[in-house]
Amino acid sequence: MFRWKPQLFLISFFCKAALCVGQAEDPLPSWHEGQSKQAIIQFIKATTTDGSNDYIDTADRIAVFDQDGTLWVEQPIYTQFFFAIDRIKYMASKHPEWKNQQPYQTVLEGDIEKIQNFTIQEIEKIIAISYAHMTVKEFKETVQSWLTTAIHPRLKKPYTKLIYQPMLEVIKYFDVHGYKIYIVSGGGQEFIRAYSEKVYQIPPEQIIGTAAKVKYEYRDGNPVLIKLPEVLFIDDKSGKPEAINLFIGKQPIAAFGNSDGDQQMLEWSQASNGKSFQLLVHHDDPIREYKYDVDSKVGTFSHALMNEAKKKNWIVVSMKNDWKVIFPPDLDVQALCP
Amino acid sequence: MFRWKPQLFLISFFCKAALCVGQAEDPLPSWHEGQSKQAIIQFIKATTTDGSNDYIDTADRIAVFDQDGTLWVEQPIYTQFFFAIDRIKYMASKHPEWKNQQPYQTVLEGDIEKIQNFTIQEIEKIIAISYAHMTVKEFKETVQSWLTTAIHPRLKKPYTKLIYQPMLEVIKYFDVHGYKIYIVSGGGQEFIRAYSEKVYQIPPEQIIGTAAKVKYEYRDGNPVLIKLPEVLFIDDKSGKPEAINLFIGKQPIAAFGNSDGDQQMLEWSQASNGKSFQLLVHHDDPIREYKYDVDSKVGTFSHALMNEAKKKNWIVVSMKNDWKVIFPPDLDVQALCP
Repeated sequence: MFRWKPQLFLISFFCKAALCVGQAEDPLPSWHEGQSKQAIIQFIKATTTDGSNDYIDTADRIAVFDQDGTLWVEQPIYTQFFFAIDRIKYMASKHPEWKNQQPYQTVLEGDIEKIQNFTIQEIEKIIAISYAHMTVKEFKETVQSWLTTAIHPRLKKPYTKLIYQPMLEVIKYFDVHGYKIYIVSGGGQEFIRAYSEKVYQIPPEQIIGTAAKVKYEYRDGNPVLIKLPEVLFIDDKSGKPEAINLFIGKQPIAAFGNSDGDQQMLEWSQASNGKSFQLLVHHDDPIREYKYDVDSKVGTFSHALMNEAKKKNWIVVSMKNDWKVIFPPDLDVQALCP
Repeated sequence: MFRWKPQLFLISFFCKAALCVGQAEDPLPSWHEGQSKQAIIQFIKATTTDGSNDYIDTADRIAVFDQDGTLWVEQPIYTQFFFAIDRIKYMASKHPEWKNQQPYQTVLEGDIEKIQNFTIQEIEKIIAISYAHMTVKEFKETVQSWLTTAIHPRLKKPYTKLIYQPMLEVIKYFDVHGYKIYIVSGGGQEFIRAYSEKVYQIPPEQIIGTAAKVKYEYRDGNPVLIKLPEVLFIDDKSGKPEAINLFIGKQPIAAFGNSDGDQQMLEWSQASNGKSFQLLVHHDDPIREYKYDVDSKVGTFSHALMNEAKKKNWIVVSMKNDWKVIFPPDLDVQALCP
C-alpha cells in the first residue's frame, strides 16, 4: 500500500549515463563551485585521507543534520504540522465541540496565516492530539499512509519530494567516507522515523527528535507501546547537544542546521577535539523555495546567529547562489537503469 | 592512566593454540553441552542461514542484553552502587553533617547488609549525589579511574574482570552473525558507557540505561554538559521496551536478562514478527558466584517470572550446570599471541 519512488541519492543530475553508474566524480554535482562546496570537500579530504594531520578515526566520524529547513522544506509551516492538521480534520467528526474551541477552530478553518502565529503551547497541543493514545505501530502506519497522498500547498508535490538534493549529496558524501549520519531534529522523532529509511536511507536508531513519552501495556493480551500526549524531551536549542549526548554519547564533529534552534548543536560539534565542520543553510531563494533569511520578518535565522557564524567561521550556504537545483528531479531511476 | 587488559572476547579457554587464531569451532566453549547451548546455536542457525524459513534480514537482527546479573556480577550490591559509596566517602570531608544523617551515615559506616535494605529512594539519592553537577566528561573519567583500583569485596578482583565469560561468548557469537548488540540496563547509562567499549566492545550509542537529565551550559566560555541529580527515565521493567523504542525504534528479536526487571523486555522481543529468542540467567551457584535463585529470600527472580519463562518457552540458564567457567581467565593475551 505504501509505495515509494526509488531512492535518488546516487543520481548525478545532468547526465543520464551517470544515473546508472552511481555518483559521478564530482561528489556534489548540485552545488555551484565556490567557498561552500570547497569547504565541504576540503573537510572530508582533511579528515579521511590517510596520513592527513586532521585525520579522524572512523569511530569518531559523526555528523548531525537538522531536518526541517536543512534537509527539506519547512514553510509555510513544518510538515509534521500539516500532518497534525489533517489528523485534527479527520478526528473532527467525533469532536463537534472543536468547531467553537481554539486552537481547533483555526485548524479546522485551515487558515495558514493564523496557524503560523500559533504559540508554542498551541502547536504542542495540536501535535500531541495528532498522536495521542495510538500505538507506535499505528502512528507509523498513519504517517506513512498520509505521506502517500499529502501534497504541499504551494509547491504541489509530495513532501518526500521536497527534500534538498544538494543536502542529499552531502549526506551521501559523508556516508561513503565513513561518517555515521544522525538526524537531530526539533520535529517528532517517530514522525521522522516513519520515512527516514526510504527518504534519507537513515535507519530509525540514527533519528533523534523531540520525543513523546510512551507507555507499555497490553491490548488483547499482546504488548503494545502507546504514545502519550506528554513530552519526554524537546530536541531544540540546548536540547540538541543534550539529546546527542543521550543517544550517541560522543561529540559530533560535523553539524548542519538552518536556524537559531541549531546554534548549540553547531557549537557543541565545534567544541569537539580536532578538526570540525559547521554549516547553516540560509533561505534566500523566494522563487525556487522560500525566503526567510536573516533580514526577513519571519523565520528563525537571527542576526545574532549570523554574527556567531561569522565569528566562528561557520559556513553559511546561500540557497540561491550555492545550489544549482533545490529538489531531486522527477526521474524514475528504475526505468532508466535496467 | 586508565589502562585496560586486552580484550578477552576471542579466547577459547582450554587450548593455548586456539587463543591466537580467534574463536575455535565451538562458538560457546564455556558452555556445557545441553539444551541451553543448543537453543542458542539453533536460533543463530535458523535466523542467519540463507534459505532458512526463519531467516531474518541483517537490519532486523537486534539483540538486547541486560547488564547487572546478566553480563557481570551484581551481588552483594550492584557495581555502580559500590562506585557511589566510594564517591560519598570521598566527598564526606566536605560534608561533616553526613556522619549523623541518613542514608549517608550507613554508607559511610560501610555496612553492606544495611545498604542492601535501602529503599529505592535512598538508592536513587546516593546514586544522584555521586554524579550531581559533574560534567559528562568528568564523570566518565572518574568512573574509568575508579575501575582501575576498585576491587570486589568477596571475589577480590576488579569489577571489569567479573564479567561472565559464557555471556561474552554469546555476545561475540551474535555479533559475528550480523546482530547489532545493545545493552539495556537499569543501571546508569553513562556509567556503563565509561567502560563498555573496552569491556564488551560495544560503543556508547548501543548502551541504553537509566538516564539522568543533563544541562548544556558554558564554563569559561566553553560549552559543557552538566549531569543533574534528576532522572529523565528509568530503564527497568516496562521502562525497558519503552527505552528500546526510544533509542532503536525497532523490536529486538533476542533478549537476555536475569530478573523480574527484564520480563517486559523479553516479552517485547517475543512479540516481534518471526522467530525470536529469550534467555534468563539463573543465579544458582553460591560457590563460584552467588545464589539468589527463585527459591532464595533475596534476589529478584520471582516464581512468577519462572512461571512466565516456562509458559513462554524462555531458556532458563543454570549458572551451576550450564557454565563450565564463570569469569574470563587471567591470561595476558598479548604475551601469548605475538
